[in-house]
Amino acid sequence: MSKPTFYAIVVGVGSGTGASVARLFAKGYPIALLARKESSYAPVVEAITKAGGTAIGIATDVSDAAAVDAAFARIAKEWPEGKLAAAVYNAEAGFSYKPFLELTSEDIDRSLSTGAKGLFYFAQKTIPQLLDVVAAGPAHPPTLIVTGATAALRGSVRFAAFAAGKFAQRAITQSLAREFGPRGVHVAYAIIDGGIDTPWGKDRVVNGGVADGKISPDAIAESYWYLHTQPRSAFTQEIELRPFVEKF
Amino acid sequence: MSKPTFYAIVVGVGSGTGASVARLFAKGYPIALLARKESSYAPVVEAITKAGGTAIGIATDVSDAAAVDAAFARIAKEWPEGKLAAAVYNAEAGFSYKPFLELTSEDIDRSLSTGAKGLFYFAQKTIPQLLDVVAAGPAHPPTLIVTGATAALRGSVRFAAFAAGKFAQRAITQSLAREFGPRGVHVAYAIIDGGIDTPWGKDRVVNGGVADGKISPDAIAESYWYLHTQPRSAFTQEIELRPFVEKF
Amino acid sequence: MSKPTFYAIVVGVGSGTGASVARLFAKGYPIALLARKESSYAPVVEAITKAGGTAIGIATDVSDAAAVDAAFARIAKEWPEGKLAAAVYNAEAGFSYKPFLELTSEDIDRSLSTGAKGLFYFAQKTIPQLLDVVAAGPAHPPTLIVTGATAALRGSVRFAAFAAGKFAQRAITQSLAREFGPRGVHVAYAIIDGGIDTPWGKDRVVNGGVADGKISPDAIAESYWYLHTQPRSAFTQEIELRPFVEKF
Amino acid sequence: MSKPTFYAIVVGVGSGTGASVARLFAKGYPIALLARKESSYAPVVEAITKAGGTAIGIATDVSDAAAVDAAFARIAKEWPEGKLAAAVYNAEAGFSYKPFLELTSEDIDRSLSTGAKGLFYFAQKTIPQLLDVVAAGPAHPPTLIVTGATAALRGSVRFAAFAAGKFAQRAITQSLAREFGPRGVHVAYAIIDGGIDTPWGKDRVVNGGVADGKISPDAIAESYWYLHTQPRSAFTQEIELRPFVEKF
Repeated sequence: MSKPTFYAIVVGVGSGTGASVARLFAKGYPIALLARKESSYAPVVEAITKAGGTAIGIATDVSDAAAVDAAFARIAKEWPEGKLAAAVYNAEAGFSYKPFLELTSEDIDRSLSTGAKGLFYFAQKTIPQLLDVVAAGPAHPPTLIVTGATAALRGSVRFAAFAAGKFAQRAITQSLAREFGPRGVHVAYAIIDGGIDTPWGKDRVVNGGVADGKISPDAIAESYWYLHTQPRSAFTQEIELRPFVEKF
Repeated sequence: MSKPTFYAIVVGVGSGTGASVARLFAKGYPIALLARKESSYAPVVEAITKAGGTAIGIATDVSDAAAVDAAFARIAKEWPEGKLAAAVYNAEAGFSYKPFLELTSEDIDRSLSTGAKGLFYFAQKTIPQLLDVVAAGPAHPPTLIVTGATAALRGSVRFAAFAAGKFAQRAITQSLAREFGPRGVHVAYAIIDGGIDTPWGKDRVVNGGVADGKISPDAIAESYWYLHTQPRSAFTQEIELRPFVEKF
Repeated sequence: MSKPTFYAIVVGVGSGTGASVARLFAKGYPIALLARKESSYAPVVEAITKAGGTAIGIATDVSDAAAVDAAFARIAKEWPEGKLAAAVYNAEAGFSYKPFLELTSEDIDRSLSTGAKGLFYFAQKTIPQLLDVVAAGPAHPPTLIVTGATAALRGSVRFAAFAAGKFAQRAITQSLAREFGPRGVHVAYAIIDGGIDTPWGKDRVVNGGVADGKISPDAIAESYWYLHTQPRSAFTQEIELRPFVEKF
Repeated sequence: MSKPTFYAIVVGVGSGTGASVARLFAKGYPIALLARKESSYAPVVEAITKAGGTAIGIATDVSDAAAVDAAFARIAKEWPEGKLAAAVYNAEAGFSYKPFLELTSEDIDRSLSTGAKGLFYFAQKTIPQLLDVVAAGPAHPPTLIVTGATAALRGSVRFAAFAAGKFAQRAITQSLAREFGPRGVHVAYAIIDGGIDTPWGKDRVVNGGVADGKISPDAIAESYWYLHTQPRSAFTQEIELRPFVEKF
């Protein structure tokens, strides 16, 4: 019997964190990229392929359980002998920033759907596969990493809806870590505490516009890879990442 | 012009915490009791009335925005000159306790709906009224108190769904406190860390069955009243309550 | 045999929190007041006596173990049949506020001595007495309350030395709560998050000088009394108190 | 002018974490090892030298300010053109584990001295040098890493003295991070949450003796190196490391 193919999945691949993570993990694994729209993942798939890697993209709304099922069926068809080495949940977070009394029912729904329910569905699909990999002798412990934010730790003015989804997300991630860590799966939460230096956010000034005042998506990707390669004798469950000038 | 009638609202009134809170706050205010079923609040309304207080009950599903609207319309009709002195959100929490892979979509939905969305709707109705009361010279700062739980602070094995809703609830409560505290509204979160000594839970043994090993609902009510009477120079935003024998 | 006399002790009695706490607890108990200088406690002893209460003052440096021993010997002589109902540790905190590189060895020493070592000595004297009281049928669970600060939760710019002592103090308090709570002693930590409205600080403007923008020492005292009266089925271990306008 | 020699310092080098960190950092830098006794660091100096690295050892009691001064004078003499790239504070922690009423004055003193005061002295010597390096164009941001423990986050039964020192240490580290991070120095705290797999602790059974149930010191060293190489756009201030089977 041949050695299994280990692959990775990244949910939420556009021009920022997801793309950086996908490009870096693609150096180690064939990779499946999920995003709501093809136009989000297509350039990343192309870049990875050009660089000699293997990537497929699947248009998926992760807050829809049936769509998540379909995406995993598609992956199973692509790599029938494949085993999941690493899964990253980096879905768009249903952001809103409004005085509480101006928030709408849609604002809270979107935040809870993408932040919490999408992760719930994604974890129910990936955890069994990651558990299955533990015994398969992977190079690194099978890993589920979730992209969090400051709003996962603090509720703030104008953040009631957004923070609700991120808090809920952190609750799920922590619960998964406590349940599946002892069975060999590394579940980690990355608290991104600061503005991310994305192509589409170049004009947004944070921290007075100082150099490195925004978080480099490539640095986030490096931290995810570092988490993935941690041996099981020294897992990190939560990691915070912030620019040196960020107030905290 | 006559002095306004200050009244209170308690959401989630059955035989435990909600009933104790309602009975205690009814010594200070006419009170509206909301619960999903009439059979939950009816005995409490009766007990308060017998004791010389004023109480009305309204059957309401707080995870349904329209139902919440209807309940507030009913209250406005009952006390047209009334002003809201204190609101307590103690809705049933959508509890579940299962291995993650056995949790269903309904489990996570119920937790997020009652824990987070119900509070969201309730706060959107009560905050404007509480702000309005600040200027009316109430005996105590207008107050919104939310009943939390250990699972609002920690995600744990078998608690992924329940913790998601409680974390989200805490996020909303904290955000409200930071936005409306400076405008004079006291928003507090009570973290109930232990089993509650309810009539229907008499047979459940916790902490080895030691006396006072469960939290007395009347003690919770006393703490809510204490929070309500705190002057605005010394607000408590989060308070934890646990039996002396509880591990933490 | 006659009913035991329950008494209280307050360490750190000047014109602010300690004086308010002493006056309030003196309504329930004869009280011993400890402060470094007689001039600090003398006016409070006088005020309590005038109001019909019983108070003694003892000049004590609590960071000196022998001085603490002597103070307790003095109290035992005053009330030979006395039993300790409540002890409050509110010692001056060894405050400093300087850029780290300007802090001196004395700054860190003072903070650790008063914040941590003084509490350590005080607890070693009071805990055995409080344990002894559990069986004596006091009106309220025997209580040790420690006055904390924001700097017990966060290390900040210019706060390295001060925060070191307050963090250490919180560590001791938490450890005591976990060890002696299950034996019936209520150990609580009050996190005072904001400027206190003391006679000597009237000119210091905080929160823009808004009314109630500083914490009332009497409100702190009320919260300590509330903590003392909590039944053991619902203990609060940490309580935060902050003015409504305080950023947090 | 020649390129400066960047070097590193590790305090607390014996057979466990300190030795692993020293060996790994010695692949990148000449390194100075401080320990109370020569017998602790001598084997590590020898191993590094044999492997082609450069290491010196200095017998130092870091809780003695004058001894710390002397150690730094010795280093300056060794590498007169040297610049400090990375400093690791891993001093023995003054451990004790006793019921509170059996703790002695020496227990609390040792914990505060090594945990907090030693770090205070060490930081006052290293921070100016690290600030100086920011402008020198180092390969990685100049870094101060401190070895923490679970007891830095939680006070527990039998941990009152030990936790006091670790809490205080965390307070200092956080304060330094907030003051010097914005000036380009990376200050990080590693919370080691579990037993460490040291040669001298081989017989101590933790987590049921399961493989990887203790933390590998080499894994800790890898995490310190990862922290050191983080770009300043994405600093981690606190990182937790625990075995996959550790309860948390």
